[in-house]
Amino acid sequence: MTSSIERALQVITTPCLLINVAVVQRNADAMRQRCKDLGLVLRPHMKTHKCLEIGAIATANTKRCIAVSTLAEAEFFADGGYDDIVYAALFTSDKLPRMTALANRLSSFHLLVDSVNAVDLLDHNPLVVGKRWSVLIKVDVGSSRAGILWDDDEDGVRLAQHITVSQCCTLRGVYAHEGQSYEAKGAEQIRELGDECAERILSVANKIRLAGFECKTVGLGATPSASFPSPLMKDLTELHPGNFLLYDVMQTMIASCQPEDVAVRVASRVIGHYPHRNQLLIDAGWTAMSLDGKGALPNGSFCLFEDEPNLRLMKMTQEVGYVEPRKGKLNYDNYPVGKILLLLPYHSCATACMHRRYIAHDNGAIVGLWTPCSGW
Amino acid sequence: MTSSIERALQVITTPCLLINVAVVQRNADAMRQRCKDLGLVLRPHMKTHKCLEIGAIATANTKRCIAVSTLAEAEFFADGGYDDIVYAALFTSDKLPRMTALANRLSSFHLLVDSVNAVDLLDHNPLVVGKRWSVLIKVDVGSSRAGILWDDDEDGVRLAQHITVSQCCTLRGVYAHEGQSYEAKGAEQIRELGDECAERILSVANKIRLAGFECKTVGLGATPSASFPSPLMKDLTELHPGNFLLYDVMQTMIASCQPEDVAVRVASRVIGHYPHRNQLLIDAGWTAMSLDGKGALPNGSFCLFEDEPNLRLMKMTQEVGYVEPRKGKLNYDNYPVGKILLLLPYHSCATACMHRRYIAHDNGAIVGLWTPCSGW
Repeated sequence: MTSSIERALQVITTPCLLINVAVVQRNADAMRQRCKDLGLVLRPHMKTHKCLEIGAIATANTKRCIAVSTLAEAEFFADGGYDDIVYAALFTSDKLPRMTALANRLSSFHLLVDSVNAVDLLDHNPLVVGKRWSVLIKVDVGSSRAGILWDDDEDGVRLAQHITVSQCCTLRGVYAHEGQSYEAKGAEQIRELGDECAERILSVANKIRLAGFECKTVGLGATPSASFPSPLMKDLTELHPGNFLLYDVMQTMIASCQPEDVAVRVASRVIGHYPHRNQLLIDAGWTAMSLDGKGALPNGSFCLFEDEPNLRLMKMTQEVGYVEPRKGKLNYDNYPVGKILLLLPYHSCATACMHRRYIAHDNGAIVGLWTPCSGW
Repeated sequence: MTSSIERALQVITTPCLLINVAVVQRNADAMRQRCKDLGLVLRPHMKTHKCLEIGAIATANTKRCIAVSTLAEAEFFADGGYDDIVYAALFTSDKLPRMTALANRLSSFHLLVDSVNAVDLLDHNPLVVGKRWSVLIKVDVGSSRAGILWDDDEDGVRLAQHITVSQCCTLRGVYAHEGQSYEAKGAEQIRELGDECAERILSVANKIRLAGFECKTVGLGATPSASFPSPLMKDLTELHPGNFLLYDVMQTMIASCQPEDVAVRVASRVIGHYPHRNQLLIDAGWTAMSLDGKGALPNGSFCLFEDEPNLRLMKMTQEVGYVEPRKGKLNYDNYPVGKILLLLPYHSCATACMHRRYIAHDNGAIVGLWTPCSGW
């Protein structure tokens, strides 16, 4: 990929974010096949890339069945013709007017709740005649973020009952993000954690069903466990991973993917040589690549460099990156001022959200300038 | 400020970035007075806020004499009627077409160079008849980023000569960012470092002048030293700090400013209570507030909370912040779901650049929605 896309980038201002379309397509196809094999619905999360073009690849052009992390994303994808959207965040009353507009205009718009108060908020805000709020109970299966506790014997049933008897809500099912799968290393650990999380959310669904309530959807979502699904996950109904479309260095360290599956680069240029400190500077700082991952990579680097295993990014200021060799002295002849270096970010979600456009490329040619949604 | 702006925010989606206009005005007035007292030109850097409205306050509505960190900023401010702009970054050849357009359309557009090759690049790209590239020599006064070394006896003079004999360039002076002032604590240390850096850049200017070349501009720029200028700084010609308009928690820790000088907040709402782990969640994650500052604040918090000294932000994911008490048990009655919490960011430059609009407020009322420039 490198040399050919470097040629196409000659007239492009750096820093910029590159998306390899063929790799995104391959990642999407693989995930779709994996879900098909398990008999699960794939509901790709849009939070990593937030753009219509990658959404189209992720949904095989159906533009149906996605998850989003903000109302801005929900509106952006709805405006782009998407439908069947899970707004996968807890809401507060200030967000009700925009949620109401989305629920009224879309065929299906689903919400997460983890408290009876949230259900009451919905109940005091009825939709147009014939529409009801579609509600998923958010479950904490061990990642200690939002959600009712999976091992609480009463919370799930109480909430299911509260939703079922409400005036304006319909219980759709249970939903969880198994964040702890990010602490796994390798397929075996990923699958072990996947089974544990699947067992936990299935136990909540079963308690709700045993109490006499419907619980159609049982969903888990995290890229590591969706990349290496565990046996028990076939008993779920859907998966909603997001990062898998782009992957990143973090996912290669977890072993959710191989380095060649990482579809995103930050392109940057050498802007100066500083031999007295064995460094060069590049035009990518923390406005172009997230500080997430500080301390996580070997050798203290913030990222990997494509085709340059000896380089490491030691520091970033607003618009400048400080590059050093891992070993030996830099041979500056190999890095003339103006040379393009391609950086593989530690965390693609955190890096992509810092860019207002993506440069999509395929087969060495730029094939699109894609505009992601931003803000809230 | 708190209670009144909280009322005005009731209908505003969180997270969002708030700018206290009166505080910005006071910070700008104080810096202008400081420069006037020293007989120095103030060239406020726009990189922290990147918006026309704060630029107007910073330049006392003259819209003249600013510094920027990207070509996108230069074009944005030029489009907004600004002139006399220092593009305070090293450039590469891909950026020449846009630099040429800016130099041709503006009365004054100044560039930084730290190599003869950069001068040659300019010389191969002449401007329209009657225009010359206005060039500042970038000097490293000890911050180890870009620039010729201040204590190299030959580099400055060689570069000055190269610029002076070139076809298309005019030497304007020398410029440095004294980044090491961020390592100071307290006015005394800030002034000591300020004197050291002023002495260093003045020595470069003197060598250039002694060799027979003109060196009108001698500029330093960093918020700590500009907030507590040292005696020797009166011999410079200009200062180009940027952060001082907003300040932040980092600057309070350096003691460049007092807590009441911090003009920026991230507004966020409580979205859930998790008493089993003594936490609450808020709707601000690392898309709304930079991860910069991780580990820098006491108690491991990513930020301070206005009027809530016992709260700390322990962790952020994409759209969620994890809040704990420093001591004791959280009294959830004080933090109902939906309550607005105001976060003081560790680093305002890194946080402001993550927002596509700012909510400007004054005297408890929202007075504007300001749109910063973004991208490159």
